[in-house]
Order: sequence, then C-alpha cells, then structure tokens
Amino acid sequence: MNGLLTDLYQLTMAAGYFQAGKAREIATFELFVRRLPPNRNYLIAAGLAQAVDYLLNLRFTSEEIAYLRGLAQFARAPAEFFDALARFRFTGDLLAVPEGTIVFAGEPILTVRAPLMEAQIPETYLLATVGFQSLVATKASRLVNAAAGRAVVEFGTRRAHSPEAGVLAGRAAYIGGCIGTSNTLAGFRYGIPVFGTAAHSWVLAFESELEAFRQLQQLLGPAAVFLIDTYDTIEGARKAASLGRPMWGVRLDSGNLVELSRAVRRILDEAGLPDAKIMATGDLNEYKILELAKERLPIDAFGVGTELATSADAPALGVVYKLVELRSGGVTRYTAKFSQDKETMPGAKQVFRFPDHDVIGRAGERPACAPDGTPAEALLRPVILDGELVAELPGVASARQRAQESLKRLPTACLSLFTIDPPYRVEYSEEIRKLQESIRDSRVGAPL
Amino acid sequence: MNGLLTDLYQLTMAAGYFQAGKAREIATFELFVRRLPPNRNYLIAAGLAQAVDYLLNLRFTSEEIAYLRGLAQFARAPAEFFDALARFRFTGDLLAVPEGTIVFAGEPILTVRAPLMEAQIPETYLLATVGFQSLVATKASRLVNAAAGRAVVEFGTRRAHSPEAGVLAGRAAYIGGCIGTSNTLAGFRYGIPVFGTAAHSWVLAFESELEAFRQLQQLLGPAAVFLIDTYDTIEGARKAASLGRPMWGVRLDSGNLVELSRAVRRILDEAGLPDAKIMATGDLNEYKILELAKERLPIDAFGVGTELATSADAPALGVVYKLVELRSGGVTRYTAKFSQDKETMPGAKQVFRFPDHDVIGRAGERPACAPDGTPAEALLRPVILDGELVAELPGVASARQRAQESLKRLPTACLSLFTIDPPYRVEYSEEIRKLQESIRDSRVGAPL
Repeated sequence: MNGLLTDLYQLTMAAGYFQAGKAREIATFELFVRRLPPNRNYLIAAGLAQAVDYLLNLRFTSEEIAYLRGLAQFARAPAEFFDALARFRFTGDLLAVPEGTIVFAGEPILTVRAPLMEAQIPETYLLATVGFQSLVATKASRLVNAAAGRAVVEFGTRRAHSPEAGVLAGRAAYIGGCIGTSNTLAGFRYGIPVFGTAAHSWVLAFESELEAFRQLQQLLGPAAVFLIDTYDTIEGARKAASLGRPMWGVRLDSGNLVELSRAVRRILDEAGLPDAKIMATGDLNEYKILELAKERLPIDAFGVGTELATSADAPALGVVYKLVELRSGGVTRYTAKFSQDKETMPGAKQVFRFPDHDVIGRAGERPACAPDGTPAEALLRPVILDGELVAELPGVASARQRAQESLKRLPTACLSLFTIDPPYRVEYSEEIRKLQESIRDSRVGAPL
Repeated sequence: MNGLLTDLYQLTMAAGYFQAGKAREIATFELFVRRLPPNRNYLIAAGLAQAVDYLLNLRFTSEEIAYLRGLAQFARAPAEFFDALARFRFTGDLLAVPEGTIVFAGEPILTVRAPLMEAQIPETYLLATVGFQSLVATKASRLVNAAAGRAVVEFGTRRAHSPEAGVLAGRAAYIGGCIGTSNTLAGFRYGIPVFGTAAHSWVLAFESELEAFRQLQQLLGPAAVFLIDTYDTIEGARKAASLGRPMWGVRLDSGNLVELSRAVRRILDEAGLPDAKIMATGDLNEYKILELAKERLPIDAFGVGTELATSADAPALGVVYKLVELRSGGVTRYTAKFSQDKETMPGAKQVFRFPDHDVIGRAGERPACAPDGTPAEALLRPVILDGELVAELPGVASARQRAQESLKRLPTACLSLFTIDPPYRVEYSEEIRKLQESIRDSRVGAPL
C-alpha cells in the first residue's frame, strides 16, 4: 500500500544503497521545521496517526515493481533492490512527539531509525502528512485564540487541496481547537463533531425564503441555523425570527458583519429570542476575527473555510527530513549539511521541555532538571520499535486536549498573531554543539 | 464509495428535500470561479477525470448510513432519505469543458443536472477536485511560461496538502505544461514522466562526496544528476566534472543561482562537458524564474516544489457551485443569488468561444458565429448522461496538449504573470441578461 506515493529519488537512492552495499546500514532521520511560518510563534504537531498507519502498511505490489523496472532510472538497478521492495516491511523505529504537542523550529517532531532504504523511502509521505496537518492545527489554534471564547468550526473542505486534504484538515483543525468540522467523513473516521445545516441552494430551491426556513426548522428543530443573506439579510432575519422556537439561530455569510450582526441581534431580541445565536461565515481569518471580537459584536460562533483548510496566509511549512546518523558495522557517523542557509545539526536528538524554555540535546543525554529539581519533559517518545507499534496512539480528542494544555502553558506573548521578538527560548545543548563542531572541523577545507 | 466525503449540510439538505417532497425535482448546478486569483489572467481547467470517477462511484455503505442515523441532525429525517442513500447512484448528467481548456471568471467548468439530492451531495467533492487541480495546472503554465523554453519539473509532493494532494498536483502540473513530476504514483497511475535522482542524504550517506557521485553515475548513467551543494557548490561541481561522461548534469539547490550557475557552467565546459546540463531547484517560483531567464543564465531546467504543489501565491480558488435551474412537474424555475458581492446569474449556460472573446449564453441558445462565419466553439460538452459515461475521457497527455494549444491562441498579454487591464473579453449574451432581469424583478420588493 502506498509504496509509490513518494518522490522517485527516494527509490533511486534506495536502489543505489543496494548497489553500494549500504542497504544494511542503520540511518537516523529527523523531521523538523527549519523556521516557523510568518506570524507564527509556535507550531502544533499533528498527523502522527497517519504517519504511523503509513509506516506500518507500506508495501509494493508486483504491478508497482514492474512499473519501476520499466523506468530508465532503474535500468542498471541491482536485482536485490526489487526483491527487497517485494518483501518490504518497515522494521525500524519511530519516535515522535505526541499529536497536539507545541513545537518550535529545529525541534524534531519525529525521528525514524531504520535500515537506510526503509528510512529513506518514507520521507516524502511523512513530510506531506505531518507538515500539512501541523499547518492546519496551528492555524486553527490562532483562529480559536482570536475568537476569544466564541466557537470556531472548520468549513473548508471545498477549498482544500483535494477532497482527502479536506478530511485531514477537519481532523487537524479539531486538534488545533475547533469544536468540529463540516466534513462528514472526518466525523465518521475520527469521531469529530460535525456541523452544518443548509446552503444558499436550499433557500433557492424553495418558492419562498420563508418556506425554506420553515422546512429547515421542521427538519432540524433546535439545530436549525437559518442562512439569511440569500436575498436581503435584514428581511431574512425578520423571516427567521417570525418562526420562533425551536432554532439554534441564524448565519450571516456576506455583507458588513459589524452592522448586520447588531441589527440582526436586535431583530432576534425584539422577537423574544435572546437565546437564538448568530454565526458568521464568509472569507474569515484570524485577523478579521480579532477585529470583530474587539468590537464585542454579538457573534456567537465563526465558521472558517478557505483560510483554515489551506492555511492561506502560510500555505506551506518549511518542514524537512534530514539524515543525522548512519551506523555501519558498529561505527556511527554523524552527518550534517553545511550548505548556505540550509545548515543542519548532526546526531539523533531529544527535546527537553522546561517550564520556560526548551533544550535540544543529544538523544542519549541525561535529561536535565529545572532549577526546582523537576526533570524536564522529554518530548520524543517511542511509537514503533522494530516495526511494531509499542504505544497506543491517543485519539483526536486527547490530542486536542494536549494542544489546549500546551497552549495554556505558553507565555501569553507567544499567542500573538504576529511574530514576537525575541521568540520563545530554544537552545541547543552543549553536547550537540560539540558534536556539530567536531563534524564541521572534519569537513572544512578537507578534500572529501 | 466516498459518500461521506462531503459537507454535512449537503446531506441535511438532501434529507430536507425528501421531507419537503422535492427529491424528484431536477436541479442544474454550475461550477465556476467568481473571479480569477491575484495575478492570473486565465485558468486552466483540470480535475475532470477525478470528478467523473467520483460521480460514477459515489455510494454509501451501511456503516456510513448508520453513522448518519446516529447524528442529532438526522433525528427527524424521513426514513425514505436513508433508503435513498442505501441505493444511491448518480443518475443525472454532467457537462464539462475538457481538461486543459482555458476558462475565465464566470464560465461554467462543469454543469450537473440531476435530481436535487444527487446534484447537491457532490458539491463539496467536485469543488475540491476541480478547484485544486485547476489552481496547480494554472500555476504550472505560469512557471513554464516564465522559463521561456527551459523544462520545468514538479517536485512538490513533500509540501503538498497531504500525500494524495501531491499525486494530484503532479497530475495537474503535467497538464499545465511541466515535463513531468517527482511523484512516482502520479507516474504509475497517469502515465506521467517521472524524474528524480538523489537528495542531500545520498551525499551524506557516503564517506565522501566523490564516492557518492561515483555511485550515482554507476546507477543512473546518462540520467545521473549530481546534487553539488551539500558542502561547497564549486568544489561539488569540480568533483562531478572530474567523473566525466555519462551524466545528465548537475543540480543547484541553494546559494546565489546567478553566480553559481555561471561558475558551474565554466567548470563543466572546461572539463570538456559542454553537453552536461544544469538544473536549478530550491524555493523557486515564476517570478524568480522570470528574473533568472532574463539574465540568460546557463540553467537548462527548473525543479519547482512548494510553490507549485501549493500554488503558494494563490493557495485557494474562489470556485463555487450554484443552483441555476430547478424543474418540477414540467415547470422550470430559474434561480440566482442577489446577496451583496455574491450575485450569480440564473439559468443553465453554455460558453461560446470566439477567436478573440467568449460569450456566456444560455444553454439552449443557437451558437453564434464569428464575423467570418465560423461558428463559435461551445466549450461545455456532455460527459455523463443519465448516469452513464458517454464520452471517453482524454488522458493527461491530451489535456496537456489542449492546454498548450489554448495558451497559444490567447493574446500574448494574457500570459503576463501580472493582472492585465482590461482582462480578456468575456460577455454575457443578451438572452442571459434578460433572464437575470426577469428574476430580479420578480424578487425585488416582493415579500418572499
């Protein structure tokens, strides 16, 4: 399953490791972000469940192997490479921070330790899975933060980058703090609360707006949300109010939300419906919600689509997967990249979380302690060992709770929607720095 | 299959149509973009093949139906709705512009005509499929245009919004004009040329850069592309050049491409390798490529990842799916939305393409003729009729060719990477305008 869902060069490299007699070497790769996206002071890690599912089920069918054999790039590949694909199983280790954990630039979100081929091939899938869901979970937390106590629902599948991305966006948005999603499959698969009542087409499908509302009320009762802007928002609000209870309330999807929300609130109140709520939707993002929340508008909930499901102001995450160690015949070689602006730190790492800062240390370091003696939390934990799942993966509800608790522990400044300076304190341990220097010395100036 | 991969409100509305006795009414929905994204003067339509596959295979399993029955939103839903889901088949019609067709704002990319429920439920999936692939195909065409004859390869799966989005991005980028993709599954599934040789981890995995290059040359022969920036680009170029033939050439992934490409070209030429090529990668986009191409740099090919697979400068498309007609008992009602800034035009439409402009007319209009008597091309064609595929879908190669031919016929100004004013001429026919006025008159001022 999914064997070919990777960049071709992962497979040519895998073939090359066999050719070079390196296929049995044990590689350690780390997945992390080089730098946080614009206006972000933290990231919420998400996507681990899909990464694990992928690693445990990664296979190559005979049709897929035949396809590779037919490519020019594999004309000279050793036969044992194709045999290895046919019996491919991930037999290595995966360490990861639990979903919902706050992470910063440079901190490994997951670590893969496995024979070179097994560690190399998954790179592409792992990056796409963890990168995308972390982007959306982070974006969701920003929206929820801006909404200052009002509910935020994820509505973006239609604008997601493919239908499947929409399902995963619903999942990640829930982990990031949304109360649910409009994506029904995300509800079915992951047990996430699902929301949604009716679109403009519902109103258009009836001879009159009033009849459309009446039918919706009959169908949904207290869950009915009347979309009131198809023809004229104020008229629509009056019609909705005229129906009386039961209803959840109304939804505004266009126009000036400042004026309309106040006017609609008055109409509902005057109709004796002070408990009827107002939801706002329509091209919202955290910056607009921040403004609306500051105005103390009578809006009870926000539905956010495009901006959330595509993380539109930061649609890509600089997430990378780097070789940091290679063990061959009992000897470990530490590796790092020194190219301009793309330097990496060698050696397998651990992230030690203190109350007010993080230390990125070597995986084998003794966990340091906070000044009060509390040991730092080591964020990376074993999930797969020798190809077997060793830790039960928490569901989305636990991941969501972890994210909320992590956000509460962050300094308030980090919750800003804009980049703060200085950023949250993340340091490298002395041991890691020493290792980096030793590698650099062995490289610089030496004809390799 | 995929029944729940939709917004919940599509399903509540479907239930409501049964409740209201409207389930047998025949609806016509049109999918189009409200306005072109920033800096775009056209769109390349893509994603039809996936849309068709979805419509023909859309089903609900008994587990999925049981899930819906358990939701509060369906507590009052009529039993016949669940029966209808259990035997769901798309029995309607799909008209569409062929993949690779250039379209403009307001022009239907596809039209769905079916019983209300069958036309409503697919909205979310169709928007996500056609919207995303059209974004990427369009972005690809911009990159290819900027590259001015140099090859462009899609390398973005790792940054795509989920692994599956990466596969579809590879597909759409090929339709838009890329010569291929790094996504192996896109190659296997769609027959797209695949590219890729080795990453930095390959270089790091060997004791020396030279040994890494030598092994790659042995594996790939004339397809070998040496990634020369792991330690020092100039040194890397010398080592690659020292190996002599066979090789495709080298890849630059960081640093100042202007200086480095010239220096590397000299090194290759001096080594007697004038036929060795240079590929540039690393956070490229059409604007950077335009600059590089203007400098007449010795770069033969570009690999573009993040910016292409996420359409980063325009990561979302304002694509919508609007009810335009509803037929009940032989009477057709034309529908439109008049809410602020979100007006739509009523009635099923056809797009008539003239040599220098388009006319959006009513579906039943007689195709108008160009001044020389040539009939305009009607872009929307039947693909599914009564639930059966009636037109063989062209493969990606045909779609790519269609895109290239369409781009050639566009006025050169439209190929600008920036918005032109006036935009390409697209008019509504008199018949459509009359229909809109008749609807508006019947609505305005009338208590609906």
